[in-house]
Amino acid sequence: MKDRIYKIIELTGTSKTSIEDAVGKALKRAHQTLKHLSWFQVVETRGSIEAGKVDVWQVTLKVGFALEEPA
Amino acid sequence: MKDRIYKIIELTGTSKTSIEDAVGKALKRAHQTLKHLSWFQVVETRGSIEAGKVDVWQVTLKVGFALEEPA
Amino acid sequence: MKDRIYKIIELTGTSKTSIEDAVGKALKRAHQTLKHLSWFQVVETRGSIEAGKVDVWQVTLKVGFALEEPA
Amino acid sequence: MKDRIYKIIELTGTSKTSIEDAVGKALKRAHQTLKHLSWFQVVETRGSIEAGKVDVWQVTLKVGFALEEPA
Amino acid sequence: MKDRIYKIIELTGTSKTSIEDAVGKALKRAHQTLKHLSWFQVVETRGSIEAGKVDVWQVTLKVGFALEEPA
Amino acid sequence: MKDRIYKIIELTGTSKTSIEDAVGKALKRAHQTLKHLSWFQVVETRGSIEAGKVDVWQVTLKVGFALEEPA
Amino acid sequence: MKDRIYKIIELTGTSKTSIEDAVGKALKRAHQTLKHLSWFQVVETRGSIEAGKVDVWQVTLKVGFALEEPA
Amino acid sequence: MKDRIYKIIELTGTSKTSIEDAVGKALKRAHQTLKHLSWFQVVETRGSIEAGKVDVWQVTLKVGFALEEPA
Amino acid sequence: MKDRIYKIIELTGTSKTSIEDAVGKALKRAHQTLKHLSWFQVVETRGSIEAGKVDVWQVTLKVGFALEEPA
Amino acid sequence: MKDRIYKIIELTGTSKTSIEDAVGKALKRAHQTLKHLSWFQVVETRGSIEAGKVDVWQVTLKVGFALEEPA
Amino acid sequence: MKDRIYKIIELTGTSKTSIEDAVGKALKRAHQTLKHLSWFQVVETRGSIEAGKVDVWQVTLKVGFALEEPA
Amino acid sequence: MKDRIYKIIELTGTSKTSIEDAVGKALKRAHQTLKHLSWFQVVETRGSIEAGKVDVWQVTLKVGFALEEPA
Repeated sequence: MKDRIYKIIELTGTSKTSIEDAVGKALKRAHQTLKHLSWFQVVETRGSIEAGKVDVWQVTLKVGFALEEPA
Repeated sequence: MKDRIYKIIELTGTSKTSIEDAVGKALKRAHQTLKHLSWFQVVETRGSIEAGKVDVWQVTLKVGFALEEPA
Repeated sequence: MKDRIYKIIELTGTSKTSIEDAVGKALKRAHQTLKHLSWFQVVETRGSIEAGKVDVWQVTLKVGFALEEPA
Repeated sequence: MKDRIYKIIELTGTSKTSIEDAVGKALKRAHQTLKHLSWFQVVETRGSIEAGKVDVWQVTLKVGFALEEPA
Repeated sequence: MKDRIYKIIELTGTSKTSIEDAVGKALKRAHQTLKHLSWFQVVETRGSIEAGKVDVWQVTLKVGFALEEPA
Repeated sequence: MKDRIYKIIELTGTSKTSIEDAVGKALKRAHQTLKHLSWFQVVETRGSIEAGKVDVWQVTLKVGFALEEPA
Repeated sequence: MKDRIYKIIELTGTSKTSIEDAVGKALKRAHQTLKHLSWFQVVETRGSIEAGKVDVWQVTLKVGFALEEPA
Repeated sequence: MKDRIYKIIELTGTSKTSIEDAVGKALKRAHQTLKHLSWFQVVETRGSIEAGKVDVWQVTLKVGFALEEPA
Repeated sequence: MKDRIYKIIELTGTSKTSIEDAVGKALKRAHQTLKHLSWFQVVETRGSIEAGKVDVWQVTLKVGFALEEPA
Repeated sequence: MKDRIYKIIELTGTSKTSIEDAVGKALKRAHQTLKHLSWFQVVETRGSIEAGKVDVWQVTLKVGFALEEPA
Repeated sequence: MKDRIYKIIELTGTSKTSIEDAVGKALKRAHQTLKHLSWFQVVETRGSIEAGKVDVWQVTLKVGFALEEPA
Repeated sequence: MKDRIYKIIELTGTSKTSIEDAVGKALKRAHQTLKHLSWFQVVETRGSIEAGKVDVWQVTLKVGFALEEPA
């Protein structure tokens, strides 16, 4: 990790099943358009409720990735 | 979501197995006495330890629900 | 819980699989050298990313344990 | 303000028009079932968006009120 | 502490004499209407002033108690 | 809200007149280049002063919007 | 903005009508005795309640102003 | 509490004996030069240690007081 | 205070009687095994409840002490 | 500063030498692709360690810049 | 440090060159009108940007100083 | 970074010259007794004042290091 510059974006992943799955889905989507994803940090764990059960987990994370030099 | 009013309460769910299960148990209990549960937010994740292992997960969450008009 | 004194240390557990597993591994390691582990609190959930997936979950926790009287 | 005891509850008021109106609606609703409302503190200001405009202001507040002696 | 569910409420106790007394008064009042009070956490310590002296200590605390199964 | 992914950006809207107007202007501008704006949260309210009056309200907000699948 | 030094003070403005008015009144008062008021930041929005309505908005703000060289 | 303006200052009171006494001493000193002291909030409780005992309690508080109209 | 290095540890002291006593007991215990204790800061004040009264005060503090040069 | 809208992004600059240099490198990189950079705020200062020395300073900052009207 | 009372003020120092220089300039200015300056704490590090470089570092600090007895 | 466990300690480094130097001195000292130092995070920047100048910079940091398996 020399003098690289990183950008940090904030995403909310959602999942019917678990916190880990919501994180995984957010990273998978980010990977479609961004290279060099490097680390993440969970900043909020929320969810919607239906009939007394978790309907959708909503996990907000910060994701850091290395910027390339502009062409 | 028109001009409804929501109340937010704070609960701690506990579970031997996982964070998700502790959340689920807290919501299930709240659903027994409250209608219109709408969303939750995890505010603390703690636990007790026995013999070097997690004994009980203790997950504190805020739970929002719509208030009905008083009769 | 009489007039005991507790010490709180901060550990980061890591796991390829889940948040719960990372916590469990940190507690297992602490248990090898410390007696009387009593409670923990998750203070940060991060991770590294490889190929658009979580590579390693890094969960930082505070762990409290009762101090014994010095001999 | 002698040795009174206060309870603090958390409400989310909503309004199409303003932050002040959302607070006012939450207090009006609380007043229907609680006596002795004394003070409030805004803890979060959010909203939903429709067609690039604020659809509903959602203002979360803590509301303090004096408890009466039980009968 | 098996899979019990706890509710957490927020109270402000007041006292002419000390922080400890304000906490004690809030707990005493809560005990009149709630069973199974289990723990508290001080979240704010304020007060009013009269003639350059503390008039009333106002100590806000969160109080956790176990919920019973609904009948 | 199924397994959608949301991105959250941070904007500062400014207005000569009110907090609500500053939020509205930030959302209007975001709407020019982003689809699916869904929610916002006010994170800071500041302003500049001229001749003892508010010159410009500067309201910083987080804005969440659903990401589309890449083509 | 060269190597100037700023002082930051904390004020609470009050108003029967709105958050903006409470801020304006605090700045107007500060302007009576301080020169070079430059910026403000809202740090708390509270209020008192009468008959289920906001009685007085109490908005606390930090206000920054440039210090002059001492004579 | 009409449209008054309050100023909030930050003080650290010290005491050999208790938190309450440190607060009391800070208020007593503020009362020597400021009129209309109205409320305080404890923001930090620290202390120095000598020979394994608390030497001096250092309690930092915010103190609010009403501003008078300038003459 | 020249170029010394300090270590900060976190302890929870407990007491049946007061916050000050819980702090004192934590410092007394730390003093049994650590030299050069210098300062502390209270970071959390909690307690357990029995029969509507504080059973045990649990005060968590950070304690700083100067490190000696290794032999 | 009329009714302009600003966007705030989060970057991590890195440097072998100092905090200031890490900030400078992040801004230099942002300047390659963004116009109207206006202000920054340091939000985290971390680093990696090699052989008991700072290897790389990692300084995370928020950077605000004015948005242009879309063409 | 007997039972002295300290006042804490908040200043923003500015500098073209470094964080340390901005702190130094704020303290130098405070020293012109205040005696007994004792300690400071950095609470915010910001800056303005010109042509992709830091133009002015703006470092906000709290400064504590002992109050004298009034004459 | 496989399933390793890290411990995080908190140190305050001091220096007459700069923030970076204070961090460097804390790490150098930690390196004398701990292996595998991996990362640090600055958590507080304070200092003492003498004659209107910074006397000693006091920089508190968290330092993470990998734990070895016990023998």
